[in-house]
Amino acid sequence: MIQLSGIAASNGIAIAKAYRLEEPDLTVSKKEIQNIRAEIERFEQSVESAKAELEVIKNSTEERLGADKAAIFEAHLLVLNDPELLNPVKEKIENEAVNAEFAMRETADQFIAMFEAMENEYMRERAADIRDVTKRVIAHLLGVQIPNPSLINEEVIIVAEDLTPSDTAQLNKNFVKAFTTDIGGRTSHSAIMARSMEIPAVVGTKEATAKIENGALIIVDGIEGQVIINPSEDCIAEYEKKREKYEEQKAEWAKLKDEPTLSKDGHRVELAANIGTPNDVQGVLDNGGEGIGLYRTEFLYMGRDQMPTEEEQFEAYKTVLERMEGKPVVVRTLDIGGDKELPYLNLPKELNPFLGFRAIRLCLEKQDIFRTQLKALLRASKYGNLKIMFPMIATIDEFHQAKAILLEEKEKLVQAGIEVADDIEVGIMVEIPSTAVMADQFAKVVDFFSIGTNDLIQYTMAADRMNERVSYLYQPYNPAILRLISIVIDAAHKEGKWVGMCGEMAGDPIAIPLLLGLGLDEFSMSATSILPARSQIKKLSKQEAESFKEKVLSMQTTEEVVSFVKKTFQI
Amino acid sequence: MIQLSGIAASNGIAIAKAYRLEEPDLTVSKKEIQNIRAEIERFEQSVESAKAELEVIKNSTEERLGADKAAIFEAHLLVLNDPELLNPVKEKIENEAVNAEFAMRETADQFIAMFEAMENEYMRERAADIRDVTKRVIAHLLGVQIPNPSLINEEVIIVAEDLTPSDTAQLNKNFVKAFTTDIGGRTSHSAIMARSMEIPAVVGTKEATAKIENGALIIVDGIEGQVIINPSEDCIAEYEKKREKYEEQKAEWAKLKDEPTLSKDGHRVELAANIGTPNDVQGVLDNGGEGIGLYRTEFLYMGRDQMPTEEEQFEAYKTVLERMEGKPVVVRTLDIGGDKELPYLNLPKELNPFLGFRAIRLCLEKQDIFRTQLKALLRASKYGNLKIMFPMIATIDEFHQAKAILLEEKEKLVQAGIEVADDIEVGIMVEIPSTAVMADQFAKVVDFFSIGTNDLIQYTMAADRMNERVSYLYQPYNPAILRLISIVIDAAHKEGKWVGMCGEMAGDPIAIPLLLGLGLDEFSMSATSILPARSQIKKLSKQEAESFKEKVLSMQTTEEVVSFVKKTFQI
Repeated sequence: MIQLSGIAASNGIAIAKAYRLEEPDLTVSKKEIQNIRAEIERFEQSVESAKAELEVIKNSTEERLGADKAAIFEAHLLVLNDPELLNPVKEKIENEAVNAEFAMRETADQFIAMFEAMENEYMRERAADIRDVTKRVIAHLLGVQIPNPSLINEEVIIVAEDLTPSDTAQLNKNFVKAFTTDIGGRTSHSAIMARSMEIPAVVGTKEATAKIENGALIIVDGIEGQVIINPSEDCIAEYEKKREKYEEQKAEWAKLKDEPTLSKDGHRVELAANIGTPNDVQGVLDNGGEGIGLYRTEFLYMGRDQMPTEEEQFEAYKTVLERMEGKPVVVRTLDIGGDKELPYLNLPKELNPFLGFRAIRLCLEKQDIFRTQLKALLRASKYGNLKIMFPMIATIDEFHQAKAILLEEKEKLVQAGIEVADDIEVGIMVEIPSTAVMADQFAKVVDFFSIGTNDLIQYTMAADRMNERVSYLYQPYNPAILRLISIVIDAAHKEGKWVGMCGEMAGDPIAIPLLLGLGLDEFSMSATSILPARSQIKKLSKQEAESFKEKVLSMQTTEEVVSFVKKTFQI
Repeated sequence: MIQLSGIAASNGIAIAKAYRLEEPDLTVSKKEIQNIRAEIERFEQSVESAKAELEVIKNSTEERLGADKAAIFEAHLLVLNDPELLNPVKEKIENEAVNAEFAMRETADQFIAMFEAMENEYMRERAADIRDVTKRVIAHLLGVQIPNPSLINEEVIIVAEDLTPSDTAQLNKNFVKAFTTDIGGRTSHSAIMARSMEIPAVVGTKEATAKIENGALIIVDGIEGQVIINPSEDCIAEYEKKREKYEEQKAEWAKLKDEPTLSKDGHRVELAANIGTPNDVQGVLDNGGEGIGLYRTEFLYMGRDQMPTEEEQFEAYKTVLERMEGKPVVVRTLDIGGDKELPYLNLPKELNPFLGFRAIRLCLEKQDIFRTQLKALLRASKYGNLKIMFPMIATIDEFHQAKAILLEEKEKLVQAGIEVADDIEVGIMVEIPSTAVMADQFAKVVDFFSIGTNDLIQYTMAADRMNERVSYLYQPYNPAILRLISIVIDAAHKEGKWVGMCGEMAGDPIAIPLLLGLGLDEFSMSATSILPARSQIKKLSKQEAESFKEKVLSMQTTEEVVSFVKKTFQI
């Protein structure tokens, strides 16, 4: 029994066998073969098994990620049906009396070298297809498996160094009970996905892949951030109990699903959700979300070869708006750049991408992209309660420019006789320190603010939240951050505007009493955090929380704030 | 006559021939040779010329940069004296009747390949030496020159894509009258160096190297940021006049050298200088600096293979303190990382180095480095008026940690009977937004603040100042920046502490009236900006500047601020 500590990234407890998402050893050695017929048959069977596997992966990918992403597996199947590759392998087995693995490896390497030497990019890509397919056939010959989330057909806990967006997109909740990774933090992509899928996750364990063997029984405790490898009977019993208790608590929370969010003393706030795709809306409704506080439109643009069309975007926005049935939906315009790259934009590499050409900066320069998105949004606006918000606004000029473009596109649509909602609120993300400092001036021109704490914290502390060496400076409760939040809220309220928050902080039990006290109007979080937050707020007094405002804002350190909150609110 | 616009990086006007700091075309082709004797002689002559050139470069480098940096040229000379390389070239000329360039190229390539294949790192470095030396010999054979600042022996204007720190360190002011580069901005290394050397410079022209031929007559107008290529007679005359006028103004300024810095209404401020090495002190004294507001100690650590010893550092600090004769000297502890790398620290590459592991963050982890520097500083403290300041402080904890280490080292020295000044002020750079926002709390524990606007602006605006695509967001006069500066100054004064500024903004004529109005106590700038600043402040009324404070701080944009200042103060 070994225990690893990591970061609790998504609540819940799971107990299941480990499934390592990692390529096995595919080293091949040359052997002399006696029964050539049998070897060729073994080869043919492996090709058939590889094809069957690719069919499963292709279909699952198509279903979950679209035909676009499945195309690569279609290409792999074509390679496996090509006698020009397969026949030479069989001939080699026959003529040289060598094992199938070796014949496949040697033959494939020749083809790969040939295709790679070609000028034509299309042909060079074929080399990559052959390489992938060869690996898969050799894996079958060696009796091992190249893991793929689509191939999982029993209850497992995924163990990986990290999970890519396409890995997580393919996880089937019926089989994948939890996951644990070596790297990542609470705001990393995989952590956000785990919360959105409502499966427990512990990230940043540093050594999950080093310590956990494939098939080993493990426990993932996403509440405390613990992973237990080969637990004892007693330990399993204890965690079964803990899981039951958590399930009971969840059942309690579920009763709050259709209730409004009211503090003990009757102050109402809105609990909304952060989403990435129309598929996430169901989770928002299931968890009693009162709106969508952040629709990250980047996902529409990522993992593909070209821009989404206006029509594709329109469909996505319309779906979300319709399914939310008049509840507010705050759509953030494209926030690409930084850690989110779009290969087809061909942007030059930057030395400091987080301080670079991204989000509104990019949209104001590449206006065709921006205008297409705004048109799609405006056209979708009549299907629900749309609010538009611009990311990474640093100056009032940028807001005026962005809004002017929006109004131009609106005017064009109206001229063309297309119906557009007339009451679309236009706001900004407050995630750059200058904007927080200038909130009183911004409040005069915007309809609302949404505080993006993930970025606001990293800029205010000048510390990349993805960089482990300085992650100790990512301090949501640092009084500097709380002061900026307070400045923003006060400035907005003075002008009669509302303020939301869509960073991870909004759903954090330690932050919630503070934010309630500072007067935050809308809390937007992972859907699964909504009910616990509602439950917490019901027990808090707004007036009491407010009475601590001055005291907290004049504290010196994060530690002071945290220990005060924990003590005062018994968290 | 072509005119290029760039960024005025250092005041003054120069008219001279262009000297392109750029490697010439060294392509070699194979030729058959009739007179083998003459060809061998030509080869030997080129080797001798290359040696003579290397001697000049070596001596000049040794003189200006130290024996450390000159060692590489010593190694090159060894290679050029090695018959094992030279004899095979001569044999090849003789046996194959080929031209010397070709023989040298082919022979050298064989040696390079051989050395590069070796396991031993020392031997692999020899490959680089042979490569450099071969280039130099071939250049002589081809009748071209590999430019090197040490080789300049007539009045020129340097034209380059950019200048490295070692390039600028070798520029001889007697010959180099100005420089112009394709890239860079007012705060880039080369711009800062130009001001420190007091030679005019226009940077960021984008096409200086594309448009200016070697030897062409050019004018560099570092006042207006213009470069004129092949100027007409009239144009030359006009610029001669402009240069004279500038020289007259400089003479006027020079009269203020020993005067205190007083505003029209008798308010006194301190004008100090930013320096990088003890060599810069003379310029500070020549320009009437009342102190050193920023001694960047990084230069002691850069451009070498290992840490400077405590003794080396002690000597440097002592020299500066002694030469400043009791005037305040604010030494910033090591600010490495970000754009300033130290290869011998072997730090991992970071995705966003400006938001990474640097300055005090690094010093608090690698305490041996930090403690060595602090010991050297403490030992030097009795030779003058030392103040110590920590860079990149983001939290009060960090300041407490850094100061505790300083006090520990001081205590150890005192225990060992070593004399240490007892009145060393300990302050911080305010260059991270959180620190500006928390200035009231910091003011209780530090002795002084120095606002580092270069970084404060880039973090507050979330825009990398080195990244051209977002450089429009590097806005020193943005009201957000002015508000943070104002918060810091007010907080310090409330606790009876003083505030300096050591970013480029402190010497900027547009910023000066604003900063005077906000109550800044110490302005630290390039030494050459001190006298113009003193002249400007003499004409300003502190009371009047102060009366505009509220108005300026409630403006919305940079443009508003700039046009107000220009109009009000006739700049």
